[in-house]
Amino acid sequence: MLMRSSLLPIISLLTTEWALAQFTTPAAVPTGVAVQGDYTGPLRPRVHFSPPAGFMNDPNGLFKDNNGTWHLYYQYNPTDIVAGNQHWGHATSPNLYEWTNQPIALFPPNSTTGVFSGSAVIDANNTSGFFQNTTEGVVAIYTLNTPQKQVQEIAYSYDGGYTFTPYSGNPVLDVGSNQFRDPKVVWYNDHWVMVIAYAAEYVIGIYTSPDLKDWTHASNVSHIGFLGIQYECPNLVKLPVKNSTSNDDQDGWVLTISINPGAPLGGSITQYYPGQFNGTHFEPYDRATRLSNFAKDDYAGQFFYDEPVSIGWASNWEYTNIVPTGSEGWRSSMTLPRTNYLVDSGVRGYHLVQEIYDVSPILSKKLSSSDNNLVNTTISNMNFDNGIYFDMNITLPSDVTFSADASINFTISTQTSRECVKGGYILASSTPYTIWLDRGQTDGFDNPFYTDKFSESQLKPAKRIQGMMDRSVFEVYIDNGAVVGTMDVYPTEPFTTLSVGSRSLPKGSEITFSAWELKDVWA
Amino acid sequence: MLMRSSLLPIISLLTTEWALAQFTTPAAVPTGVAVQGDYTGPLRPRVHFSPPAGFMNDPNGLFKDNNGTWHLYYQYNPTDIVAGNQHWGHATSPNLYEWTNQPIALFPPNSTTGVFSGSAVIDANNTSGFFQNTTEGVVAIYTLNTPQKQVQEIAYSYDGGYTFTPYSGNPVLDVGSNQFRDPKVVWYNDHWVMVIAYAAEYVIGIYTSPDLKDWTHASNVSHIGFLGIQYECPNLVKLPVKNSTSNDDQDGWVLTISINPGAPLGGSITQYYPGQFNGTHFEPYDRATRLSNFAKDDYAGQFFYDEPVSIGWASNWEYTNIVPTGSEGWRSSMTLPRTNYLVDSGVRGYHLVQEIYDVSPILSKKLSSSDNNLVNTTISNMNFDNGIYFDMNITLPSDVTFSADASINFTISTQTSRECVKGGYILASSTPYTIWLDRGQTDGFDNPFYTDKFSESQLKPAKRIQGMMDRSVFEVYIDNGAVVGTMDVYPTEPFTTLSVGSRSLPKGSEITFSAWELKDVWA
Repeated sequence: MLMRSSLLPIISLLTTEWALAQFTTPAAVPTGVAVQGDYTGPLRPRVHFSPPAGFMNDPNGLFKDNNGTWHLYYQYNPTDIVAGNQHWGHATSPNLYEWTNQPIALFPPNSTTGVFSGSAVIDANNTSGFFQNTTEGVVAIYTLNTPQKQVQEIAYSYDGGYTFTPYSGNPVLDVGSNQFRDPKVVWYNDHWVMVIAYAAEYVIGIYTSPDLKDWTHASNVSHIGFLGIQYECPNLVKLPVKNSTSNDDQDGWVLTISINPGAPLGGSITQYYPGQFNGTHFEPYDRATRLSNFAKDDYAGQFFYDEPVSIGWASNWEYTNIVPTGSEGWRSSMTLPRTNYLVDSGVRGYHLVQEIYDVSPILSKKLSSSDNNLVNTTISNMNFDNGIYFDMNITLPSDVTFSADASINFTISTQTSRECVKGGYILASSTPYTIWLDRGQTDGFDNPFYTDKFSESQLKPAKRIQGMMDRSVFEVYIDNGAVVGTMDVYPTEPFTTLSVGSRSLPKGSEITFSAWELKDVWA
Repeated sequence: MLMRSSLLPIISLLTTEWALAQFTTPAAVPTGVAVQGDYTGPLRPRVHFSPPAGFMNDPNGLFKDNNGTWHLYYQYNPTDIVAGNQHWGHATSPNLYEWTNQPIALFPPNSTTGVFSGSAVIDANNTSGFFQNTTEGVVAIYTLNTPQKQVQEIAYSYDGGYTFTPYSGNPVLDVGSNQFRDPKVVWYNDHWVMVIAYAAEYVIGIYTSPDLKDWTHASNVSHIGFLGIQYECPNLVKLPVKNSTSNDDQDGWVLTISINPGAPLGGSITQYYPGQFNGTHFEPYDRATRLSNFAKDDYAGQFFYDEPVSIGWASNWEYTNIVPTGSEGWRSSMTLPRTNYLVDSGVRGYHLVQEIYDVSPILSKKLSSSDNNLVNTTISNMNFDNGIYFDMNITLPSDVTFSADASINFTISTQTSRECVKGGYILASSTPYTIWLDRGQTDGFDNPFYTDKFSESQLKPAKRIQGMMDRSVFEVYIDNGAVVGTMDVYPTEPFTTLSVGSRSLPKGSEITFSAWELKDVWA
């Protein structure tokens, strides 16, 4: 979904050299064949999905088919490198990292209409009546955006999600609003449940349906968390609960709401609310507001249908239309895929944990200088080509008092060391137990909204830090995804070197450290 | 209040040249005489209050006496330029800008104890029994912090708040916790009401008392808003409501909670909750989370007793102990004083508006190049010495479509133009109606937590933008304080020049612009 129903103008007023790039996008939208992409540009992520060409935003319609193939659709402008002309692009993968671009799945019927965000379900019991001979029927539920209003439509697929036919009875939900969008549908016991944003009213509507065609309003969740200027892209899904203090509640629900603009850090961000859902009404466990990411580039995340796995859009509306990847003919990538669960963290309430999905398929050679104990030493100059993934496990003595400068630090530099991304973990100071990131020492992009420094604090010291530099996307995951930071980075030359170390850690500390070169999944 | 009950160690690990400065603070704490201050340093604010010497944090005990004199107390370390050794410093003013430093008001009884944050009331009806012959008795209510626990004490003043005597029956509230602090007391009909933070439990306790001595627990507000790592410095005050949609509710209440660390932007921030209060229980109007400031340096704000006026601490715990003002012998300043009210903003709910308190006493000469219509033109090189205040009123045609680069911009530069602070207001782009600030082009301080860019969006275009550069503090107020941004700035040479302009505004737009040199209230 776009924040306005009209095409978005391009920012040209800002003090940046990155106005519109020279790249020429196709004049016509390819039908029936996959859009071709050139994945060789130096800013192209190797394992974070990016569109073959043109502009991508929200992940849509995520589901895993009965063959185990993951389907990723996405808001897609195949004819320009700025948002607008929204289609549903499509890619498939056996492992959520190695993607095959598929033909565009959903097309707008005319030039003033957009196929906005939505979700997909497998209608195994043929509740819709579309599927007589299969338990693998796929139905996409999406917002059709016209200059007049936003209505909800459905389309069905007989071939497992590769091609779709719009339902002849569309729209299936029309409240006469031009700010009503982004349906996400799940199955609850004996009926379908849709959450959808009344974007300008700060309301998430909950609707139910027996057949995906007739929808009945059940309840609203209103004015919760940071309001921003608009609510978008809600999700309401059931997740496992680990470490629950009460054994009778091994599953919990989480409502996510994305806001744009108006995030605390500026622009777009996603917040979440763990709670209870009874099939018609959602009640959060508490009145706390929690963000799913402490950096600035993780928006509109969606869960795969009936899976605890999610993917977010790794960008921010404050600058997404002008970032320098436009010079390579594409803009925006997705976050890493994540396996999610809830943790009852005691006094701080329920917390969403977003583990990196199994990375083994994308690890290339292990770097020879890894596997050291990093306590109070530095490993410099670990070199890589495509990108790097590192993983450190930290064991600290219990009940220790830290020196004031106890910390873990990492720097990822370009070949000439002129540019770098820095980060670290503070164990003691005015703000102990804090992860920080700094993308300010790169030269490829400058913009009043391109915030450079991010941090988040924890109650206890981190036990694990995972990081991945993937050309123009950096992500850090603390304690298996209890804290996640995602930020786009735009160097003018490729990142090639990691240095990592720690200092002033107490006696008895251990840090096991490993790092791997990333595989180039597009090679 | 401090985030830990021990003294805070100084960050030394970070990549900054601003470690501990050379300044030597007094070995002994002055008693009975005002601490002397040298207010001549180039980073010393002219009209934002800063301590005479040493380290200041939260405003405490704010009240206005019967003579109209405003009393500001503050968390104060008179013996060092980092937090610790907490006293209550004291200053008085006829207008909230021109301050006279007074002798320290509250001293800790020994070296391991701190007089932490709290509030003050005028006990006009002698409910406490301390005051037989006056209606001007002042009682301070504060947290006494020891290595063992945090208890609430009171002290009374017979001379209108200049000297205090601790109550012989202290503590007045002890729950056996070492994370229980920052009492703020107001009068409600026929009893006193205290809000206080159970800091590590994410609970604000509400207590009542007939006499300020005996306190009864009435209710809790729990797990509301952004949790951070600790709740601190709650306020619960009655404010006027303007534009209420229901005429029967011309007063509203607001609960504020400061969190540190763990703010969305990192470190410390204050959030607020408009709602209803019946003398024992507070219920917010909605479940939304709202921040009182979109930048990073406005924490622990407190309301003056029985006045809608507030002051915040203009710093952030992520870096407050190492900022370069230490080289001038002081650290931290307060925000501008603000007159507060609530607005029923319709679909977005109740909103706190923080107007700059009457600035007329601090305006020196009007700059000759102001009073122009700023539409699609730029006024460059307005020069000033002490600091500058500017005010622009914007009238736009109704129902207009803005050009993609319609904006208002300002730059405040140093004499050599080597450093600057930039800001602006975006009228159209991916994120329209957005105020932005950038402090990244100054050279006096660098730190992983010194975030440089801030922005906040509005539903409608701004009608007024006020800005003030006061040496090392910059503040911007949009629409009379509906949106407020406060950030510390550390140039290596003084700011001396303002340039301001607009572009691509539609025909029929008007911007009246005026600017004044700031008075030096310490001259």
